[in-house]
Amino acid sequence: MTREKLTLFDTTLRDGAQTTGVDFSLADKRHIAAMLDSLGLDYIEGGYPGANPLDTEFFSAKPKLRHARFAAFGMTKRAGRSAANDPGLATLLAADADVVTYVAKTWDYHVHVALGCTLEENIASITESIKAALGKPREAILDCEHFFDGFKANPDYALECAKAAYAAGARWIVLCDTNGGTLPHEIERIVTEVARQVPGSHLGVHAHNDTENAVANSLAAVRAGARQIQGSLNGLGERCGNANLVSLIPTLLLKPDFAENFEIGVPFEKLSSLAKISHTLDELLNRAPNRHAPYVGASAFATKAGIHASAVMKEPRTYEHVAPESVGNKRRLLVSDQAGKSNILSELERIGVRLDKDDRRVAHLLDEVKQKEALGYAYEGADASFELLARRALGEAPNYFEVERFRVNVERRHNAQGDLVTVSEATVKVCVDGETLISAAEGEGPVNALDLALRKDLGKYQCFIEDLELVDYRVRVFQGGTDAVTRVLIEFRDVTGESWSTVGVSANIIDASFQALTDAITYKLLKSGAQ
Amino acid sequence: MTREKLTLFDTTLRDGAQTTGVDFSLADKRHIAAMLDSLGLDYIEGGYPGANPLDTEFFSAKPKLRHARFAAFGMTKRAGRSAANDPGLATLLAADADVVTYVAKTWDYHVHVALGCTLEENIASITESIKAALGKPREAILDCEHFFDGFKANPDYALECAKAAYAAGARWIVLCDTNGGTLPHEIERIVTEVARQVPGSHLGVHAHNDTENAVANSLAAVRAGARQIQGSLNGLGERCGNANLVSLIPTLLLKPDFAENFEIGVPFEKLSSLAKISHTLDELLNRAPNRHAPYVGASAFATKAGIHASAVMKEPRTYEHVAPESVGNKRRLLVSDQAGKSNILSELERIGVRLDKDDRRVAHLLDEVKQKEALGYAYEGADASFELLARRALGEAPNYFEVERFRVNVERRHNAQGDLVTVSEATVKVCVDGETLISAAEGEGPVNALDLALRKDLGKYQCFIEDLELVDYRVRVFQGGTDAVTRVLIEFRDVTGESWSTVGVSANIIDASFQALTDAITYKLLKSGAQ
Repeated sequence: MTREKLTLFDTTLRDGAQTTGVDFSLADKRHIAAMLDSLGLDYIEGGYPGANPLDTEFFSAKPKLRHARFAAFGMTKRAGRSAANDPGLATLLAADADVVTYVAKTWDYHVHVALGCTLEENIASITESIKAALGKPREAILDCEHFFDGFKANPDYALECAKAAYAAGARWIVLCDTNGGTLPHEIERIVTEVARQVPGSHLGVHAHNDTENAVANSLAAVRAGARQIQGSLNGLGERCGNANLVSLIPTLLLKPDFAENFEIGVPFEKLSSLAKISHTLDELLNRAPNRHAPYVGASAFATKAGIHASAVMKEPRTYEHVAPESVGNKRRLLVSDQAGKSNILSELERIGVRLDKDDRRVAHLLDEVKQKEALGYAYEGADASFELLARRALGEAPNYFEVERFRVNVERRHNAQGDLVTVSEATVKVCVDGETLISAAEGEGPVNALDLALRKDLGKYQCFIEDLELVDYRVRVFQGGTDAVTRVLIEFRDVTGESWSTVGVSANIIDASFQALTDAITYKLLKSGAQ
Repeated sequence: MTREKLTLFDTTLRDGAQTTGVDFSLADKRHIAAMLDSLGLDYIEGGYPGANPLDTEFFSAKPKLRHARFAAFGMTKRAGRSAANDPGLATLLAADADVVTYVAKTWDYHVHVALGCTLEENIASITESIKAALGKPREAILDCEHFFDGFKANPDYALECAKAAYAAGARWIVLCDTNGGTLPHEIERIVTEVARQVPGSHLGVHAHNDTENAVANSLAAVRAGARQIQGSLNGLGERCGNANLVSLIPTLLLKPDFAENFEIGVPFEKLSSLAKISHTLDELLNRAPNRHAPYVGASAFATKAGIHASAVMKEPRTYEHVAPESVGNKRRLLVSDQAGKSNILSELERIGVRLDKDDRRVAHLLDEVKQKEALGYAYEGADASFELLARRALGEAPNYFEVERFRVNVERRHNAQGDLVTVSEATVKVCVDGETLISAAEGEGPVNALDLALRKDLGKYQCFIEDLELVDYRVRVFQGGTDAVTRVLIEFRDVTGESWSTVGVSANIIDASFQALTDAITYKLLKSGAQ
């Protein structure tokens, strides 16, 4: 049986950037684009060049993508001026992208009220803007804003917009449920009607989650003939978010009614990276991942101990709708210590240590990890700290140096010129191989000062750490309040390009940072074979 | 037109109690039952008497309910013994409840593997258990476990179970998608088939959110003929949760295709209490409400984009799928990087300032917000800092106090007992009304020490800030590296229960925290009318 191609279009970096509280940096955008590309998505919409300095910069040179086409979002030309003479359109077409996604009004009411032009002028804007894109050349996509409300109010006009875009050469005409109020049975009915006039192979759907139906609406549109789904990672997006691709992708790949009929760009073997990608996005946003997220949440395959526990163990496939491993997740049976041990064993194997599961050191290490995690440590994002913990338990990690004391001072005062300045200074007293060394440094803040002082003079080990570069520093506070527990994650890199992450936890952010910093330095000495 | 009755069955206190991390007290259960009853739900399932001491106690005397029927959950009698001679069944029937909800296996495979009895014995257990309940007298409901998987594997047997329950006198036969893997189009097809054999007015649906389709699955079942929906508040429930009644209820009451055809127990005038009920449940569970929750989330009616904002103000009904007030929520126009004048104007209006959009102070404030946001400030989550910015621009915020200098010191050293300890201390020199005050404090960390020192003595203003309580402290670092920009968000509360959030941004985390702390104190003085 031949399967039809179903195209996935990601808008995490555009509509997702509209999420309240989401504020991507340029580095975030590049990182996320690379993740989406590695997953195998067909289109990545990077933002709205010209709307803000960040997006304009992101589109000054398109990211290197192996698979996905890179799309710039913007409005069709204004009525009353030519495409050649519209500065917004010029900026959009100048953006370094493969594709232009135009948004246009398709609800007659909005054309009148928001645009203040005639219905014909709006159609002309659609047609001319698409032709302008094709002339660059760019692929053109039309996002039909408020399509479903527009269709209910004036089906002829909404259809006329879609048909005009198709006739002008748009590759995709995307039906947007802009305010998210349309229900699945309505989506199915309306898309079916549209597909009689515009080929389904050119129709897409852009759903919002305002009635908690964005995923169902996307599936309903596909069943009615649409062949492109727009969505975002973790359902980011304005208000209640967009259709969640992290939920849709496994459904499309694993549920027979879709998997047998459609082919998507995400290969089956990439599916197991999905949980990690979802959690990485949360990390970038400094958010706690949703434990209850479909497919990828920590609780998605959790079974509480109870009367059916043994049956679940006997034949998990009849209790789980998909295999947790298929999406990179795992089964959690809260009664089982065995799961913990096999986790530890597989982590040890990853760092090249092979132990028998009955080795007492495995149980010992498992206990230690559990204790640490109860305190707030998280080793999923701190591979180097886990390796140090393991090597210490195995007696394989020397104490290269001992910090006897440190002091960090932050002072805000008027300087000689009368300006208010803040000065951060740290002193570290460290003992290396019997030798006591004291170093001091100023920094941009207390942690920067501490980091610089700590790495200033490690005696005979100094040569091993000269090439260290701090690349990331993240803080999460638990339970609220400055006196709550603080978790710090730090990532370092060296000239080989290898990077590693460490974790520190304390009520005191300086202490937590210090733990992560010393772990990072110790890890570097260990991997350098320092003696 | 006469509308058909659609029954709502809440399982927050039973299936919702299975949620990872949820641990209701008896007081919580009583409180939640009262809320559900006041909302107008038809059934409240209180728990599983006999399964744990809490539920047994909850069912020793049923809560006073004005509207809802109170249901006890449990298993049908075991095979191989009579209903009269089954202790589990006896406990269930002794519970003080109006209704018994039996769960029974309807997937032939599970009957064999998990129960280890014959298919006929399982049917007999269903029939006899229902008759035992009716004899008490109790109303009887059958939850058909794994019904959809069972139906796919052996439709005849799954149907036979449902028909036996109906024949025995069960008021409702509830089709459960126990592992949550069934998709909406399958639900619609299978419920349609079942409704040919058991009247739809006796059929219910119990959906789980494992593919993010629990709400859509519930709606699909109703469209196929089922007349009872089981769900929970905020979608609590095992793994990914149950169908979210907080999303379903407004859809059923406000969307014409459902509202015109069905009548539910929740009266329209109760709908505006929905946001509050949803947030109260989160408070009981000590969880932060989901900002992006459909209908009731803080962002559910928030608009960030400047281009949309002016149109939304003009005619909100065409941009909002329902009126925010109808569910007890409100419209928010966010001040953000993409802000336009309309957002600023509506935010000003919220704080009681009405300016003309051509007032030069509006343009000035917009410029200032944009500049600040370019530096990393984010006012969406810092309403108090925005208000201060606005009032300063309008010349309405006095400089109550001036911090001349501060110093924060963190020291890690060995104490007299030889233990490593970390001590944090801060000194603040502040000028209030010509008077210079110096305060010092120790804290759990540098920010805690600074906060305590700052609030120790503000001279004549001290009486206004005695009741301040820090409730949240969040840190985000941009661009990676300890010398990158740090954004701090702080939330304070006072005895009135009002809380407010402030933001600070700097390369130095102490400086950023200091800004947010002083903003928070200044805001409190402003709102107290301090002179």
